[in-house]
Amino acid sequence: MRKINSKDIDYIAMGSTVLGTGGGGDPYIGKLLAKEAINTYGEVSLIQADELTDDALVVPIAAFGAPMILVEKLFSGQEFIKAFEMMEYYLGRKIDAIMPIEAGGLNGVIPFSIAAQKQIPLVDADGMGRAFPRLEMTTFTLHNIPVSPITQADEKGNKNVYHTIDNTWGETLVGATTIQMGGSCALGCYPMSGAQVKKAAVHGIVSYAQTLGEAILNAKELNRNPLDTLIEKATAIKLFTGKISNVAIKIDGRWNKGVCEIVGLDKFQGSKMELDFQNEFLMAKKDGKPVAITPDLIVLIDAENAKPITAETIQYGTRVVVLGMQANKQWRTPEGLELGGPKKFGYQEQFIPIEELNKKE
Amino acid sequence: MRKINSKDIDYIAMGSTVLGTGGGGDPYIGKLLAKEAINTYGEVSLIQADELTDDALVVPIAAFGAPMILVEKLFSGQEFIKAFEMMEYYLGRKIDAIMPIEAGGLNGVIPFSIAAQKQIPLVDADGMGRAFPRLEMTTFTLHNIPVSPITQADEKGNKNVYHTIDNTWGETLVGATTIQMGGSCALGCYPMSGAQVKKAAVHGIVSYAQTLGEAILNAKELNRNPLDTLIEKATAIKLFTGKISNVAIKIDGRWNKGVCEIVGLDKFQGSKMELDFQNEFLMAKKDGKPVAITPDLIVLIDAENAKPITAETIQYGTRVVVLGMQANKQWRTPEGLELGGPKKFGYQEQFIPIEELNKKE
Repeated sequence: MRKINSKDIDYIAMGSTVLGTGGGGDPYIGKLLAKEAINTYGEVSLIQADELTDDALVVPIAAFGAPMILVEKLFSGQEFIKAFEMMEYYLGRKIDAIMPIEAGGLNGVIPFSIAAQKQIPLVDADGMGRAFPRLEMTTFTLHNIPVSPITQADEKGNKNVYHTIDNTWGETLVGATTIQMGGSCALGCYPMSGAQVKKAAVHGIVSYAQTLGEAILNAKELNRNPLDTLIEKATAIKLFTGKISNVAIKIDGRWNKGVCEIVGLDKFQGSKMELDFQNEFLMAKKDGKPVAITPDLIVLIDAENAKPITAETIQYGTRVVVLGMQANKQWRTPEGLELGGPKKFGYQEQFIPIEELNKKE
Repeated sequence: MRKINSKDIDYIAMGSTVLGTGGGGDPYIGKLLAKEAINTYGEVSLIQADELTDDALVVPIAAFGAPMILVEKLFSGQEFIKAFEMMEYYLGRKIDAIMPIEAGGLNGVIPFSIAAQKQIPLVDADGMGRAFPRLEMTTFTLHNIPVSPITQADEKGNKNVYHTIDNTWGETLVGATTIQMGGSCALGCYPMSGAQVKKAAVHGIVSYAQTLGEAILNAKELNRNPLDTLIEKATAIKLFTGKISNVAIKIDGRWNKGVCEIVGLDKFQGSKMELDFQNEFLMAKKDGKPVAITPDLIVLIDAENAKPITAETIQYGTRVVVLGMQANKQWRTPEGLELGGPKKFGYQEQFIPIEELNKKE
């Protein structure tokens, strides 16, 4: 166990944007809510999964919706408390600890605001090790942990409980009402035992996000290059350097879908990169050839300040670096690839790990 | 209190089709489910609202969806039991009696199957006195009774609870998931006390449906004309006689919207009638002039057998009679007209009672 203070949140938010792999919603609002709650209620205890008793009740709390809307339609923070309390009411017991469903994007920091208000610990683990666009795309699903009961609350005061037959139906039904609610809501989901967290979660991911955030934000003080320190800490591969030449984006239900084109600079002069996204970046192709494929992480970095860029904020002309990072090993199993691999998103290409795709000849 | 047997269900189903005013779904499947349950579990006690204790828990159970789908996608009956039990679980207490939400269409008979299985009484009352296309269009809403918590179950096994801020949000959110569920589901809604039923419901409506059904089905045995006996029992006005000349229908979300054209016969020769519908018939115009307007009931009758026709089964060439019936007086108040009157459905026309529209000069 260690205490998380307001400064730590800055690092975690920055690292969550890296792990958001272009999606997950910009963590800015979540960061403000988390810092305000910590300032009001005190620091949050970040615990390791093995500090949980096997019968503890752990519930991931998440912001859910279209990233573009999550940026524009602000959360009050009370939606999350309602989703939390609805879960306690429905299950008829107290929640012992909360956990991010994904350590990427907004959901990497939002849970700190609920943990602070509810004075309960936050587990240093998540269900993705990154961000993914669909509710059922979790390592919890890989371990047959039901997403239901799901509790849902919006800023207007609507609050619902879903008990779906499988995790995909959770996405379908909650997605349908979320659009009616204006495109965003708060969820409690995947209520699970301490024993299940130990077995199914991606461990240490919050601390890892903090490490990545520190690499970016503290580099200058240490007279180091932030991009280099990020690459080092993330064991990332530099896939491309260039300038945004085009971005096509459309909202389809609760997804931002599109493609971003980058023309090469420096040693990539004459080459072109295309990044496909559905909330998150899913496929990076250099001159038509895949160089990074979901579930591996594709991270778009602003070359000027080494900060990650989310897909909905991509701007023409920005100088960027594209990094690739290895997915958690749970995603690289046959079951993991079935749930989060390229076929799931309609690609013909087979998954090939980035380290093989970018092997030095 | 009186006992309802399998034969009574035939009459009630027929009368419910009249009160369905073109919508509410064909009661055929509901009739089979109700009769099977009565044959298995015994007759159902139909009670008057004043037989309820003031603190009794009464819950309307309803089929919800697009009428066209309600006809084609069969209910197993278990969805209703799940919605019922989900309500008991969520409220943490036993349901004392059930009630139709609308005595029109499928929902006029479905509740008998649950009452039989659960061995609890059914209240001789509903929240519409007819059928209406939206969940919030009830006399319960007129008495500020919340539709929430709403429980929802589908045939696949998904089951949800909605706690919406108002009754319109109930329609919005439940409507969105119902479409995802394939267009139909079972609901528990408007849980209320015995005292609330006494104040807010349309009383005696199930018995009234039975009276109308008997008028149609028993007339021949009594050597009477079924249409005449129906008109007499319903205090209906004969608005038109003719032949279906055209019907345009489209599914919009969970609604069948369209218009049915009838060319006049007999004394209406040379005239033309148009019936607008959104699940239910909402407006009848003779030669462009309104002769019946929602919330008053517009009933389309097959001239050959005096049986009512639902909007989704209208067929070109059928000889028909159009009847108008007065809405329950709760619908004719300013609040009632705001909720179920022509403006709510986008019409410019003001409501005028059918007896005034068709006053004999």
